[in-house]
Amino acid sequence: MNFASDNWAGAHPKIAEALSAQSQGHAPAYGASPLDARVEERLCDIFERKVAVFFVATGTAANSLSFATVARPGGVVFAHAESHVIADECGAPEFLSGGGRLCPVDGALGRMEPDALEAAIHRYPPEFIHAGQPMAVSLTQATEVGTTYSLDQISEIAGICRRHGIPLHMDGARFANALAALDCTPAEMTWKSGVDLLSFGGTKNGCWCAEAVIVLNPELGADMHFLRKRAAQLFSKSRFIAAQFDAYLADDLWLQTAAHANSMAANLANHAEQASALRLGWTPDANEVFMIMPKATQQKLSDAGAVFYPWHPPKSLEGKIGKDEVLTRFVTSFATTEAEVDRFGELVR
Amino acid sequence: MNFASDNWAGAHPKIAEALSAQSQGHAPAYGASPLDARVEERLCDIFERKVAVFFVATGTAANSLSFATVARPGGVVFAHAESHVIADECGAPEFLSGGGRLCPVDGALGRMEPDALEAAIHRYPPEFIHAGQPMAVSLTQATEVGTTYSLDQISEIAGICRRHGIPLHMDGARFANALAALDCTPAEMTWKSGVDLLSFGGTKNGCWCAEAVIVLNPELGADMHFLRKRAAQLFSKSRFIAAQFDAYLADDLWLQTAAHANSMAANLANHAEQASALRLGWTPDANEVFMIMPKATQQKLSDAGAVFYPWHPPKSLEGKIGKDEVLTRFVTSFATTEAEVDRFGELVR
Amino acid sequence: MNFASDNWAGAHPKIAEALSAQSQGHAPAYGASPLDARVEERLCDIFERKVAVFFVATGTAANSLSFATVARPGGVVFAHAESHVIADECGAPEFLSGGGRLCPVDGALGRMEPDALEAAIHRYPPEFIHAGQPMAVSLTQATEVGTTYSLDQISEIAGICRRHGIPLHMDGARFANALAALDCTPAEMTWKSGVDLLSFGGTKNGCWCAEAVIVLNPELGADMHFLRKRAAQLFSKSRFIAAQFDAYLADDLWLQTAAHANSMAANLANHAEQASALRLGWTPDANEVFMIMPKATQQKLSDAGAVFYPWHPPKSLEGKIGKDEVLTRFVTSFATTEAEVDRFGELVR
Amino acid sequence: MNFASDNWAGAHPKIAEALSAQSQGHAPAYGASPLDARVEERLCDIFERKVAVFFVATGTAANSLSFATVARPGGVVFAHAESHVIADECGAPEFLSGGGRLCPVDGALGRMEPDALEAAIHRYPPEFIHAGQPMAVSLTQATEVGTTYSLDQISEIAGICRRHGIPLHMDGARFANALAALDCTPAEMTWKSGVDLLSFGGTKNGCWCAEAVIVLNPELGADMHFLRKRAAQLFSKSRFIAAQFDAYLADDLWLQTAAHANSMAANLANHAEQASALRLGWTPDANEVFMIMPKATQQKLSDAGAVFYPWHPPKSLEGKIGKDEVLTRFVTSFATTEAEVDRFGELVR
Repeated sequence: MNFASDNWAGAHPKIAEALSAQSQGHAPAYGASPLDARVEERLCDIFERKVAVFFVATGTAANSLSFATVARPGGVVFAHAESHVIADECGAPEFLSGGGRLCPVDGALGRMEPDALEAAIHRYPPEFIHAGQPMAVSLTQATEVGTTYSLDQISEIAGICRRHGIPLHMDGARFANALAALDCTPAEMTWKSGVDLLSFGGTKNGCWCAEAVIVLNPELGADMHFLRKRAAQLFSKSRFIAAQFDAYLADDLWLQTAAHANSMAANLANHAEQASALRLGWTPDANEVFMIMPKATQQKLSDAGAVFYPWHPPKSLEGKIGKDEVLTRFVTSFATTEAEVDRFGELVR
Repeated sequence: MNFASDNWAGAHPKIAEALSAQSQGHAPAYGASPLDARVEERLCDIFERKVAVFFVATGTAANSLSFATVARPGGVVFAHAESHVIADECGAPEFLSGGGRLCPVDGALGRMEPDALEAAIHRYPPEFIHAGQPMAVSLTQATEVGTTYSLDQISEIAGICRRHGIPLHMDGARFANALAALDCTPAEMTWKSGVDLLSFGGTKNGCWCAEAVIVLNPELGADMHFLRKRAAQLFSKSRFIAAQFDAYLADDLWLQTAAHANSMAANLANHAEQASALRLGWTPDANEVFMIMPKATQQKLSDAGAVFYPWHPPKSLEGKIGKDEVLTRFVTSFATTEAEVDRFGELVR
Repeated sequence: MNFASDNWAGAHPKIAEALSAQSQGHAPAYGASPLDARVEERLCDIFERKVAVFFVATGTAANSLSFATVARPGGVVFAHAESHVIADECGAPEFLSGGGRLCPVDGALGRMEPDALEAAIHRYPPEFIHAGQPMAVSLTQATEVGTTYSLDQISEIAGICRRHGIPLHMDGARFANALAALDCTPAEMTWKSGVDLLSFGGTKNGCWCAEAVIVLNPELGADMHFLRKRAAQLFSKSRFIAAQFDAYLADDLWLQTAAHANSMAANLANHAEQASALRLGWTPDANEVFMIMPKATQQKLSDAGAVFYPWHPPKSLEGKIGKDEVLTRFVTSFATTEAEVDRFGELVR
Repeated sequence: MNFASDNWAGAHPKIAEALSAQSQGHAPAYGASPLDARVEERLCDIFERKVAVFFVATGTAANSLSFATVARPGGVVFAHAESHVIADECGAPEFLSGGGRLCPVDGALGRMEPDALEAAIHRYPPEFIHAGQPMAVSLTQATEVGTTYSLDQISEIAGICRRHGIPLHMDGARFANALAALDCTPAEMTWKSGVDLLSFGGTKNGCWCAEAVIVLNPELGADMHFLRKRAAQLFSKSRFIAAQFDAYLADDLWLQTAAHANSMAANLANHAEQASALRLGWTPDANEVFMIMPKATQQKLSDAGAVFYPWHPPKSLEGKIGKDEVLTRFVTSFATTEAEVDRFGELVR
């Protein structure tokens, strides 16, 4: 019953196999191999347009280099107050973008509230150099709290970006989970809704280490080859990333693993709704389930072998968690089994 | 006959197997797994002292973060004019160390000349703030041109560092090749000779992606956990690096693969010495062989299927390469076969 | 009736004279002149301890270099949400400190609420590298909204800093105005209350350009000479700053000009309290007065020749400003005359 | 007899007067005053084209921000090995341009040798991301060693820049001295010869603190307002810089002070040529004279009250300075008197 995080899992067997198959032979380094090219082509197909693909080591790198390629002096990126870039990346986005600022924007359930976003951007009027200048908006899809933006919600955010002349970045560390939840195409969830830059994550969904910046807007990213190399993020044996993505994208494996994780999360949520000793924080769209439970229940579950984390309550839950209660997070992945979920259900019934 | 680079190879079968064995199960992320701990302990054994180990994505990251942890404002790192940090890292050491400078130091055969190093440091006297201040010396072992520093040569450089109160870094992208060439212990080649910080490379010698900063001097590196995270170099599924190092270091695999690569290079050099149509640039210690040949020979070898690169001649060869000649580099690795080397020998005999 | 800002004024005649007296003769550059030394000694006397003084070009530079000298990777500076470093320095503190983050802390009347500060720091627990790490707290004295922290309030903030092991910085762009308001000594308002680093401003209070970092805590600032030079903030003809400070500090001129500005502000506030067409936002301690007025009154005052700015309402005024009203800021300085203030009083009576 | 440096002087009386005249009254801050605008217009007239002018605190800031506005990731600026940006700015150009690199280029008498520049740029081929990419060339006019580039020499350097698609920056800390030496117009010495960006210095030639970036190429510098503010280089009371420049440029004062300094240097050089106990290093064009003298003479001159510095010999003098000899630098300025020069002549005759 390991629900600690989707990055505690290993790799999907097909991905492990594909990588092993690359242990032999020689291939050009630094992304110049035929396999690297094949993955880029595959992603162009998937996104229904010519995109530029840059493998990097971590999701944090993908986010940070996305910001770096649109950096401006005194530049400000607007993101949800609980977003990964603000809460979990130790200043990497600021540092790797050359000193940019992240401005937190509030909103319920992990989604930026459009009015709050507008108000935040208005604090940086274009001619007032003292404040700085807007440089991007970043939304997380699926969000850090297991919800998703609908296509309309993405478009609304994108509209704000266009009005202010700034690009829209999507942190897609759980891109596949969002895609499976919305049942739409990658193109629809990104550039057709106004997204310019994407952090495309494979690690949480079945790879060991497969992250990429995908530049969707052909007017951006011209300096990304240099930015990535300067950030020490260009792998010499790049094909070991390519091999993972190759298997990940083949035969829709990525969508199947994401759908499985989402389904396991939905089952967990169902158990939570029927449980007496705990309650669901909110309904998940993707692969993260948040539950409010007495500390005694938390202890009992831990004792029974369930692994999960307490979580900092979002503003929307302020006053709704009792003194002896705790908000907890359960994450599912391609590796979560029905048996694990059922066992949890038995424990909380 | 692929002698393009040791990073064109894949992975040693034992390393590929070890990684595959990690595809199942859950383990704490971000370096907290038991396997991560085991590798760190193993490295403490190997280096005969408590060392701190930080996995990173690339050798460039290992070098850059080594400099970052000893960074000073206006800081200057002294390195060989042809070193990787100066010639091949696109400003990453400067950028990731917060704006440091790399000062090139001359010396024959890829080794800094101690007098030239002293003279370079003297241009930055400690009280003259206008110039900046020395912050580290970095030597490459094995060097970029296939030679090695002897233990005495390392100690001499370290003595200069101590006199100026600055740490000594070793770029060990080909650490194992140097170790095999010198037939000494890791401790002797590093801290016992005065090295404080090490970029420990496994990628070129049989791993897919296994690089680490090893902090040998216990007084340094206190902020490295934050520096690495801020540089977006902390892997979530860190155990996929750990698994590679675990197999790499087990049963001295790393020393065997390095010895093999060195031996193949020595054989190549022997062929070159006996060849009529080309000549050896200098005698290699490790796994890189440099040859001077007519462009016609270069073409003939390429046509026969040999893959290798032309190389920018070092100062010591100025005037020694004819108008129709070219300096070329041949790199061997764990994956180089005797058959490839023999075939080369036949072609140039 | 110019109440636009205290940086719209010129220079006090005694300061202009002192500078003119330095137009002749030669003196060592870069801060090595006898006059530079005399000012440093004078400041040691004033602060009743050995302090280190670093002239810089702007208050923004003083703030940013203060942060730079205590910078940590992933470092976070906590400051009031409406502070100058957050609202008006275009990312300079982040950039010049090598990528630090500024975390806004709420609090009424421009002062950080201690509980809010504690809560903000708690979001960056020392062992959780993902979030980053606290690196300083910065308070503004006098605040951006014309109030001051009492000595007890400063000590309370300093206590929080000590518990978390981080230094306390004071942005003293209006240091003299605060001092005059509190009627205490410079030592009491700084290191005796726990302040480690001070941005000491003279520009707003009668100089043309006289700003300095004053390092009060002798354990800090060792690298400041290099930090300042690297930030291009070391003046060659440093004595033109020294001359201004020399006159500024002589015969308590700085305290007199500040007391005058504060007194003019108090008079303005009195007029506001007795006015029918506008009301005081809050009672000022220093030289800034905030008034809420109908837009018609704003227009009438402007037409009559009063120069002042509308201001972004702080959170504490939310809902308290009518639809047709506007918050406005009036700033006084050494150059403000009683006649100007009286004229304002006549207009609003 | 003070020949230590042109930044040991104070201010020209007319400049001191002009500044004093600004001590009264109010004016918009941050460069928005009418006087600021007048200076910018005057510079447009002087340069015979619409230029953008940005006052900054130091020449180092002007150089660094010039590079920042053309910065590229992994970017390299090519400058003479003995240039101020490389030898005397403590890494500010690297830091303020976000991690750029300065590549030293050799050449006799302070001027980059065009072939050496070409060769240096060729080490950074545009498609080879590992090395980095050229981002600018910076030449110093007058050079650090008292010589000047002729217009043809500037044009030749500019031609190299154009072929490689990179801008040409001129470090004009002693711009007026060069102009007086060449007897040409500011337009001819800059944009008509291919210069895109200029660090325009007034401090060494009679101001206290008057430095500016002048953007000559209208396609560049769009982000300079933000870059300057982010570097903490935007003065609030900007008019105190404007007032200095206003007087500096009025009635060709700047050309007269420069011509005077050059003339004093020429006289010093004449004395050196006729002296028995020392010899001229090379013939000066501008206001710096380099002499080789026995250490005994150096001592004798010092004892007699002459202030001057020993200097690090350039490569071209290697082997030409005796064991008991020393290279020395004498700098003249607007404040140098004929009496001082005559006195020197008497001493060395």
